[in-house]
Amino acid sequence: MEAVRVPKEDLHRFCVEAFGKVGVPKEEAKIVAEHLVEASLRGVDSHGVIRVPYYIEGIKKGLVNAKSSISIVKETPVSALLDGGNGLGEVVAKKAMEIAIEKAKTSGVGLAGAKNLGHVGMLAYYTKRVAENKLIGFAFANGPALVAPWGGAERVFGTNPLSYAFPTKNKPIVLDVATSATAHFKIKVAMIRGEELAPGLALDKDGNPTTDPTKAFEGILLPFGAHKGYGFSLLVTLMTVPLIDGTFDKDVVLHASTQGGFFVMAINPTLFREYEEFIEDIQRVVDTIKSTKPAKGFKEVLLPGEIEERVAEERAKKGIPIDLEVWKSFEELSEEYGVELPKPL
Amino acid sequence: MEAVRVPKEDLHRFCVEAFGKVGVPKEEAKIVAEHLVEASLRGVDSHGVIRVPYYIEGIKKGLVNAKSSISIVKETPVSALLDGGNGLGEVVAKKAMEIAIEKAKTSGVGLAGAKNLGHVGMLAYYTKRVAENKLIGFAFANGPALVAPWGGAERVFGTNPLSYAFPTKNKPIVLDVATSATAHFKIKVAMIRGEELAPGLALDKDGNPTTDPTKAFEGILLPFGAHKGYGFSLLVTLMTVPLIDGTFDKDVVLHASTQGGFFVMAINPTLFREYEEFIEDIQRVVDTIKSTKPAKGFKEVLLPGEIEERVAEERAKKGIPIDLEVWKSFEELSEEYGVELPKPL
Repeated sequence: MEAVRVPKEDLHRFCVEAFGKVGVPKEEAKIVAEHLVEASLRGVDSHGVIRVPYYIEGIKKGLVNAKSSISIVKETPVSALLDGGNGLGEVVAKKAMEIAIEKAKTSGVGLAGAKNLGHVGMLAYYTKRVAENKLIGFAFANGPALVAPWGGAERVFGTNPLSYAFPTKNKPIVLDVATSATAHFKIKVAMIRGEELAPGLALDKDGNPTTDPTKAFEGILLPFGAHKGYGFSLLVTLMTVPLIDGTFDKDVVLHASTQGGFFVMAINPTLFREYEEFIEDIQRVVDTIKSTKPAKGFKEVLLPGEIEERVAEERAKKGIPIDLEVWKSFEELSEEYGVELPKPL
Repeated sequence: MEAVRVPKEDLHRFCVEAFGKVGVPKEEAKIVAEHLVEASLRGVDSHGVIRVPYYIEGIKKGLVNAKSSISIVKETPVSALLDGGNGLGEVVAKKAMEIAIEKAKTSGVGLAGAKNLGHVGMLAYYTKRVAENKLIGFAFANGPALVAPWGGAERVFGTNPLSYAFPTKNKPIVLDVATSATAHFKIKVAMIRGEELAPGLALDKDGNPTTDPTKAFEGILLPFGAHKGYGFSLLVTLMTVPLIDGTFDKDVVLHASTQGGFFVMAINPTLFREYEEFIEDIQRVVDTIKSTKPAKGFKEVLLPGEIEERVAEERAKKGIPIDLEVWKSFEELSEEYGVELPKPL
């Protein structure tokens, strides 16, 4: 796919200005822009700046509010429940993350839930920051129903990502995965490109397995890893709906600006050991994995998050590629709101 | 496979007496017996009474001690780290679970790690009890290295199970899964029966994909769900080794009586909501899943743990089937130690 490359700073400026035009307060626009640019920088394009026009559309349609109004519904020394007042998800979820970090530093563990909020972006954003605070991070978010429970032929769960991050001596280990076998977005790309899907990813709307992307797009996604992955789809829903009164997957409007509930947890390893001992032993695990002989067809063994770190380094130097279709949506925003486009490199 | 059916009470008596003969104190023998009989009752035969002769062998070989000596290494209002003195895993892990439950009741959350302990059995045993206390339970345990990281061709991780449980109005939802694509034990069964393995489960010792159970048994297991499942294999190791100073997978002796570290967490849902509201919303998720239209080839959609509950009901009535090979090992124990065999039904 052809793309325009832009520097991250100017992309950030463009996002902040565009959000400002639809009433997002500057401080909140900066948080969302930082998040989306970071996702694009790390190569997580589906959760990056591609979302800017959708978030703006979501605000205009009233699916999400331009201005968040965060209130703390319930709080203890180890926990907090936030109501986001249906504000932009990145703003509300970041606040929840900050509270979880603070509580884990003082009480050893911090759990924070957030309900009534828009799309929270890339979960790795939150868990990585928890890990950068010398804590272990977990995050869960449910979304609009697209995925069947194992053995079922109806949309019950969102693609329901979960993430964890552990600090290391260098960059944190960061896993961030959808619990669906594939993303709805990737099926759309296959549809546009006329490519067949791999088997085991989706059912058609009548519940028959399909590799036809058009049928899959109208149909039902499958969880990753069969019945085991279904257990994780369900886990995300349980942590973000009944536990914190988040919106149930089936009730979340299907739009790129929406989310159900968000849950973040921070665990302080010093509850159990000296931090230095913990990090030494993490390093041993890391070194063992990195020195593992590659299997046939693989060049090396990667840690979760390693690819994203490499892409981020490359894109920081060469600029962030914006697909032409996304660039076109930026041009439309530029025209409609009089925001200057990012300058291509 | 042919089997002898025995009542659970008499099976329990047999286990307690057999463990007693090798120096396990009665109270500890009762805990281990209760655990193994419960696993067999629920149909989790690989973690049930089949282990009795192996645990006894482990004690005789000095891999695990007949008598546990549990000490608390570090403790806070939300956490505890236990050293099990290399006692039988079920005894030590149960103690950790009780502490996590107690702390979650008083502090809202309880995290407990246990190091230096034998095989902990079936993780569902612990999380189910956490859920029966109106709490959300998580458990992790690492074991002897058998599983490659995704893209690797060496044994790095144990089959590393993880489990969660949530209370409901009726029986808890209990997920308990190995993070490997299959169990080492199941490959052995395929080898004995001369059956080919499904693809994607294992590599031979040189790192080539194989469906030959003999090659797979000497070779390397794969994680479930490709790179995503690898993330969960790694998570279990990180939670049970660097976090709590547990034995690294590669250092755990490969024997049916051994384990690395064990970690259990209990979260009190009342940190966030009234318990009744939480349970109402759990019920909505349960009802939605159970009323989902089945996919082609499925009769119904099951909740995690539902099969095990059904098997347990059936076996409570009809007795627990003991495979003839396992029965033979019981006869040998009976002869060697003068313990009366369970009476077949």
